[in-house]
Order: sequence, then C-alpha cells, then structure tokens
Amino acid sequence: MMEAPRVDSSCEDQAGPAHPGTFLASQYGKSDHAQARVGVDFPVFVVLPAGGSGERTGLQTPKQFCLLLGRPLISYTIEAFERVSWIRSIVVVVAKENTDLMAAIVGRFRHAKVRVVAGGSTRHRSIWNGVMALSEVGEEEAEGGEDNKVVIIHDAVRPFVDEDLLYRVTVAAREHGASGAIRPLVSTVIATTSEGFLDHSLERAKYRASEMPQAFMYNVIQRAYKKCTEADFDFGTECLHLVLRYCGTNAKLIEGPPTLWKITYKRDLAAAESVIKDTVSRRACMITGRCSHARMLADSLHKAFCKRETELDMIPDVKGDNVKYLLKAWTFIQLSMNDSDLDEEVETTFAALEATNQTLLHPVVVVVVHLSTMDRWAAEPTAFAKLASGAKLRNILLYGVNLQQSKIPFSRPTGECLVATAQTTT
Amino acid sequence: MMEAPRVDSSCEDQAGPAHPGTFLASQYGKSDHAQARVGVDFPVFVVLPAGGSGERTGLQTPKQFCLLLGRPLISYTIEAFERVSWIRSIVVVVAKENTDLMAAIVGRFRHAKVRVVAGGSTRHRSIWNGVMALSEVGEEEAEGGEDNKVVIIHDAVRPFVDEDLLYRVTVAAREHGASGAIRPLVSTVIATTSEGFLDHSLERAKYRASEMPQAFMYNVIQRAYKKCTEADFDFGTECLHLVLRYCGTNAKLIEGPPTLWKITYKRDLAAAESVIKDTVSRRACMITGRCSHARMLADSLHKAFCKRETELDMIPDVKGDNVKYLLKAWTFIQLSMNDSDLDEEVETTFAALEATNQTLLHPVVVVVVHLSTMDRWAAEPTAFAKLASGAKLRNILLYGVNLQQSKIPFSRPTGECLVATAQTTT
Repeated sequence: MMEAPRVDSSCEDQAGPAHPGTFLASQYGKSDHAQARVGVDFPVFVVLPAGGSGERTGLQTPKQFCLLLGRPLISYTIEAFERVSWIRSIVVVVAKENTDLMAAIVGRFRHAKVRVVAGGSTRHRSIWNGVMALSEVGEEEAEGGEDNKVVIIHDAVRPFVDEDLLYRVTVAAREHGASGAIRPLVSTVIATTSEGFLDHSLERAKYRASEMPQAFMYNVIQRAYKKCTEADFDFGTECLHLVLRYCGTNAKLIEGPPTLWKITYKRDLAAAESVIKDTVSRRACMITGRCSHARMLADSLHKAFCKRETELDMIPDVKGDNVKYLLKAWTFIQLSMNDSDLDEEVETTFAALEATNQTLLHPVVVVVVHLSTMDRWAAEPTAFAKLASGAKLRNILLYGVNLQQSKIPFSRPTGECLVATAQTTT
Repeated sequence: MMEAPRVDSSCEDQAGPAHPGTFLASQYGKSDHAQARVGVDFPVFVVLPAGGSGERTGLQTPKQFCLLLGRPLISYTIEAFERVSWIRSIVVVVAKENTDLMAAIVGRFRHAKVRVVAGGSTRHRSIWNGVMALSEVGEEEAEGGEDNKVVIIHDAVRPFVDEDLLYRVTVAAREHGASGAIRPLVSTVIATTSEGFLDHSLERAKYRASEMPQAFMYNVIQRAYKKCTEADFDFGTECLHLVLRYCGTNAKLIEGPPTLWKITYKRDLAAAESVIKDTVSRRACMITGRCSHARMLADSLHKAFCKRETELDMIPDVKGDNVKYLLKAWTFIQLSMNDSDLDEEVETTFAALEATNQTLLHPVVVVVVHLSTMDRWAAEPTAFAKLASGAKLRNILLYGVNLQQSKIPFSRPTGECLVATAQTTT
C-alpha cells in the first residue's frame, strides 16, 4: 500500500525530475548532523596509496584489486570519496606495474575525480609521490594557494570510510595542522622482555590504535616529507609521527567507527563482502523518466524508502553519465507512466544494465512501478508475465507494481491509498 | 585414477578397520612437529568463559551462540579442544540464563569432555568460577594433585585455535607458571594527551597484542584469584596481569597465528564462516564398513587424500558415538564391497545424516566407492542414477566411483591402476 501520488495529466515536462543525485533516508525527517553540512570553504584533496602486495591474504591478487561482488575493492574506497561533494580530486598511487590495471578500473567504474600516479618502493615514498602530484593540482585549481589546501591520506583497503569522519578529520587538520582517526585498543598491549616474557601491560585507557584516514594542511605534510630522512622513508609507518617530529605538529585525534578496519587477511575479504551486501541491500536506484508525473510519484516512493533506511539514487534515464549509478545498486525502480511504451522502456533499462556487466554476476532486480489510469495491465497480466520470463533468462528479476488511478480524478489530488497490484515473475 | 588397493576375498572380519579417528594429511609423509607429539604427562584442563552478551555484533544472539553453517560458534571452539587427546576436560562458563541452551548444544553436538558452569557478573568472576570447578575435578582425577595441573584459559569466540599453539602454551605454563599467546600489533599504538592530541607513538617492535589462549599452573592462577581485589574482579582484563601482580610470575609469551583473532563484530561472523567453509572443504569422513577388504581400500584412498591436504575421519559405521563424526564434515565417502547391498548401505548412511539435521541446511556430498569384481554397476548404470535422483530430493548429492577388479586375480596384489568409472548425479 502506498500513498497516492499527486498526479496531473501533462506529460510534456522534458526537464522533469532530471537532476541525478543520492537521497539518503536520513535527509528525510531524521536529524543527522553529518547531513546538515554543505561542505568546506577550502580545497580538499585525497591521496590513496594502493601499492600493497597483499601478501598477508595469501592470494595472488593484491587485496586492493580483489573483486567483491564483481568490483575491485579499491573502487569501493574511491567511491567513498567521490560521493563527498566537497572533495576535489583523488590521487591513487599504485605500483608501476599496476598503472594500466588501475586506469582500466577508473574507466570501467567511471571514477571521474581520480588521477593515477606511480608509487615508490615504500609506503612513505608512495604517499610522497601522491602529495607531490597535488602540488601541480594546487597551482591550477586551488584558490588561496598551498597555504589553504588540506590533503586526506587514506588506505585503499579501508573501503567503508564515511563522510562524517572525513569531514571531522578535514576540519581538525585545517584547525590544528594535522589530524588522524583512532580506535580503542581491541587487545591489551603488553611490553615484552628481551627473553620473551611479559614485562608489563599498558593501561588501555591511555592508549589508542592509530588508524586511517589522516588529514594534513598541505604545507605541513609537504614540509615533513622534505625534511625527513631516508630511514623515515624506508621504515617509518606513521605520517602523524613525521609531522610531529619535523614540524612540531601534534595531530588532533578523532575517534572513528569500527567499520574503519583495514582489510588484511583473506577472511577480511569475506567480512568486507558481507558489509557490502548489507549496504547494497539498502540501496536502490530509481529511473524516473522525464515526465512531470514522475516527480510526484518519485517523491511519494522516496518517502516510503526513507522509512526503510534505504539509500536511493534518482536518475531521469540511463544515458551518459547516469550509467555510473547503475553500477552502484542491484535493485532498480523504473517509473512508468500510463501512456508510455512499457516494453520499450524496460528494454532500454535492461540493455543499459547488461552494458555495465552487472547482470553477469548476480541477479539484478528491476521493479517497474506503473501509474495507469486504465486497467491496461489488469486486462493483460500475461503480457507482463511474459516480459518477466524473458528477463529471468537475462539474469534480471522483473517485478511490476501497477498503481491504478481509474477511480481518482486527475484534477483532485487525494490522500487516499491506491490498490497496488503486484505482478511478479513466476 | 587410483592405485589398486590390495584385496582378498574374505569379508568376515567383524573387527575390521573399526577404530574411528582422525588422520591428518600431514601425518602421512610430511613432517610436522606438532603431529609428532604424543601429548603431555601432566593433567591439562580448559576453562572457556562464554558469558559475553555480544553487544558489539549488533545482533540479538550473543555471538558465541550464533550459528555458522548450522552449528553454534562455541561448538567449533569446544571441538578445537576436544580433538586434542591430552586435554582432559573443558569447563564452559555461561551466564545463568544460558545454561540450558549450552547443555542442549553439548548434547546435540555430542561434546563428551564438557562440563557447564554458571558464570559471574564479570569476565574475571566467570573465569574464577571455572577455575574453582576444576578444583573438584582435581581431587578425583588428577594424579599428583593440584601442584601438577595446568589450566588453559581461552575465549569462546576464538574458534580457530590449533593443537600446536595449545601444546606450546601448556608446556610453557608448566615450566614458567604462566604463558600467553601474543600477536604483532596491527596498528601503531599511540599515547594521547588529555586534550585528545597525539602525545607520542609507541615503537611497534617493543610491544605486542596480548591474545588468547593463556595457560597457568593451577596453583598460580588459583593463588592470584584468591588474592585479588574486588576492583580486579570488576575491571581487570588480563589474567597475565593478575599472576604478575599477585604471584610475581612473568608469563612466557608465545606468538600465535593470525587465525587467533577474536570474533567481535558482525562482519567477523562472515569472516569466520568463510574460514570454516575453507576448512570443511578440506575435511571428509570415510565410512569404511566392517569388511577386511575395506582396510586396504581405505588405506589406498587415504594416501590419495593426503596429497590434497585433506583431513579425514574414518569410522566403520554410522552407529552410536560415531555419529559425532557425521557432524563435522559435509563430504562423506562410503566404501562398498562387491557383495554388499548398496541400496541398503546408502540408505543407512542417508538416514543417519538426516538424523543429524546436516542435510537441512546445506547439500551434503556422499561418494560411494564401490569395489566390484563383477560388472554389476556397468550392467545397470540407471539403478545408481535413480538412487542419486532420489538422494537429491533429500539434499544429498550422491556420486559413485566403481572400481572394477574383474581382470585382476584376488590372490595377486598388483600396483596397476584400475579404471574408475564415475557415475554422477544428473
């Protein structure tokens, strides 16, 4: 059952609800301080070192390139940054032999904000390469020059970083020069004697695990790398330590959520996939069409989604850049108006989904919500069932919801519930 | 292709290869110092605190009771101890409200070495209850009294502890009074200022994460608990710390493998399930029958398994206590002799598998290896296919391998390869 969308009979509005974008359930009603922000008023860039060999997973493929639901891990991490509007661009630093692979991933998953840079022989050398690459960006793009610029450094193998934490580390870095995410210690940390005995346990409350992301004023991290030694480049692990040592900057520490964990072992890939499945099941993409009816129906459906904590992308069609939204979801809602050609609309969506290769891996769900003023579907239920049977062979599960409006005059919007006739695949 | 088993025509040997047990691939040929051990010459007990509420998983069920492939997590942990022959018994300490549930798990998964004890309000109080419960055991069972006894303390939510590590902590505890597993730190540990800034980073090489299992001489851990304060009972986290403080015993630290990790978050359950699936796929149970032919065929098959790093349980039949081996595997090999009634044998196995409820959850694979001196199967291949079709409906995937011996005289064992005719389900 669904609240009746307000409908008028005009279907000429070519601009339509055209603006694509993501609407979080939390934007509707629920208060969420992360969502209230509009961004930051200084340029923010990301350096993503992704040069690891992944030897601890015991797999051939370095873990940042392992596929989770058909998409490389690093693509999820990049997406976590790309969906943050106030992040300008992302420099991904990969081993020289993987630059082609990385470029192919960027192309395939339409990562528009990414630049690929070749890494160095250690983690710090790779980060430094990424930071230097931003220096060029800075001259062209960043107003206020390098004094104003913040750079976030993250791990390619921590894909679940959220906007709220990115905002907090960014603002803290702007204020204090450096900042970093921390987590409580999961195990007691102990000091050992040289003979391998317990010397003493640390008091847990005074210590934290240093995690990623970390953020720095550009000139702070640049200065630290310019001053640091070969030994720092070869054996150092922490950027926070370098800026403390060489710039006297004590980083502000920000507690992050448990989802920050670093994918290290093979089992972590299974864990990450389970998290992604959870997320994917709470994400959908609505193809609204360009008809003005759709705006109201979409609004109505959106409200229904909000109640279910589901993230919803809305696009007017499956053309051009909108295709990238098809890559993020496994459930699609196609709005269809009473005077449109259902078969043709559905075929356009199917073809676009097949072009993304999404359907190769897992079944994709497409729900057609059809707003009709006639009993057309009711008159020919077998036509839809036939469409659904054909879709199944293409790994697409097609469902239909028919909102019949025959008894409600168009000119009088009502709050009455409509009877939704669901027609499903057999 | 398989090496020809040595066969004689007698099928009267009722004792047969009757002794059930697990044969690790590594016992065959490959050297593995863990397997060379015969055990220890002092009594060893385990205390397994399992009182946690699992709030960090975000699930209703405490994580130790979450099902992985249809079996509660804690049952895997118990099994890790039960399969170590030199461990006498295991005291599982659970919250009072879960004692019935725990007793049901012990019954269902036939944990013969387990005693269930009600816990206290904190982790230390629960461990202390478990340690006190061993005091009674000690008087009855342990030769040499309490001075001689070692107690291993572990977490219910670390199911992948192996015999090698258990042996090393046990022997170290016997020698030094206390011992504990450690792991390298995964994150840099940092000290924070009271205002939430970085104070300094710890030098990773000097510190370790303290993990489980830990082991203690009984009188050491008992003395520590008798002396410790209410604050220790309420807020203390580490037994190692208590024995250092109250008994002056510096525990010997033993580096464990990454599989020691503690199941903490919901994603860890997915990770654990992936590890269990990997393990299960390298484990099988062979039902040999009681015929003397079987001993040689089993031996031959066992050699073949060894090459594939597969753990193999061997049982003569599916009666009585042998049923517990059915609960550990998803792949079964049934040896069948030329003069036995295949249908009846297979039905007995199927009924036993169904009684364990294994088949409710996932398909179970049964491979019948039939050693025939006639072309009986070849003459009636459809009979087997029919059996397999019926099995499929019961969630059992039945495969057959027919070893034809018609051209090899029984009295002359040969090294020739036999042609194995595989008949599979459709």
